[in-house]
Amino acid sequence: MNNKFEEKTIKTDPIFKGKIISLQVDTVELPNGNVATREIVKHPGAVAVLALYEDKMIVVEQFRKPLERSLVEIPAGKLDAGEELQTAAERELVEETGFTSRRVRPICSFYTSPGFADEILHLFLAEDLQAGEARPDEDEFLDLEFLTLEQAQAYIAEGRIRDAKTIAAVYAWQVYQLTGRI
Amino acid sequence: MNNKFEEKTIKTDPIFKGKIISLQVDTVELPNGNVATREIVKHPGAVAVLALYEDKMIVVEQFRKPLERSLVEIPAGKLDAGEELQTAAERELVEETGFTSRRVRPICSFYTSPGFADEILHLFLAEDLQAGEARPDEDEFLDLEFLTLEQAQAYIAEGRIRDAKTIAAVYAWQVYQLTGRI
Repeated sequence: MNNKFEEKTIKTDPIFKGKIISLQVDTVELPNGNVATREIVKHPGAVAVLALYEDKMIVVEQFRKPLERSLVEIPAGKLDAGEELQTAAERELVEETGFTSRRVRPICSFYTSPGFADEILHLFLAEDLQAGEARPDEDEFLDLEFLTLEQAQAYIAEGRIRDAKTIAAVYAWQVYQLTGRI
Repeated sequence: MNNKFEEKTIKTDPIFKGKIISLQVDTVELPNGNVATREIVKHPGAVAVLALYEDKMIVVEQFRKPLERSLVEIPAGKLDAGEELQTAAERELVEETGFTSRRVRPICSFYTSPGFADEILHLFLAEDLQAGEARPDEDEFLDLEFLTLEQAQAYIAEGRIRDAKTIAAVYAWQVYQLTGRI
């Protein structure tokens, strides 16, 4: 890894520690010797699942307070402490949708906002699904839908799907349909 | 838009106002009448550019303090106040890479972390590129690279490319190569 532009920490000011995120401001020395500050959100990381059932993608619609609107997204959620990634993916899938999968595998992992947050999201593919009963968290309210690729693309065009993980998943699914690989 | 699960704000506690982000905690009433808190990061929004030059994608490698490591990413940056999206995309492209484009068009827009942040990222495609001189911000240090699709996919596999916007852009580019549409 090329870290030649590394920014050395001079000091860290903890600002906030919440239930989900925490915030700190680091004072750093830049490669040219100048000093700057970096506002940094810490997050435990998350998993998300492209779950394919009868050639349709399972999505959930839920209200997102930071946006003051609903979004249609693939099932996802925060990692519990010490939890294996694939276990977390299977847990979120069944909690939010009721579906279990006999075939779960990783697609890719990505930082959602590397400029100000350390959140990493691990995206999985789930196939061979069996329906069951959803059991969302106590303060989680969501609607389930099943979308064809064309419907998912229409939702993106309409702005109903508008988050990074779901758009990446729809592209990955299209590539999978076109090439047989993901 | 289905907002039936709307969470009504009871109160907003401002926590922090920084140079780039701010943080607030909202107390909300849930659809079932229960009360919960939501930790919310506010961000001005950003643009990113899939810039194709001689069948290669232009990327920049830079140090990302929240991750304490370097990432290879497509050119991107925050929106200036009141700036048009396409103008911002063209500005970031020339600032970070020196390239200008005669053909810039939107691909899609997405929220990066809708669970805790309102950041939206607008992804553009830039073709018909002309080389020029980069002029990064004073506290921005980066290396330029040109990747084929296969190289970009290898960078994803190696973890050198590992952020949402660049992974979405690589998938979009692959779909563009396979179908002629983006």
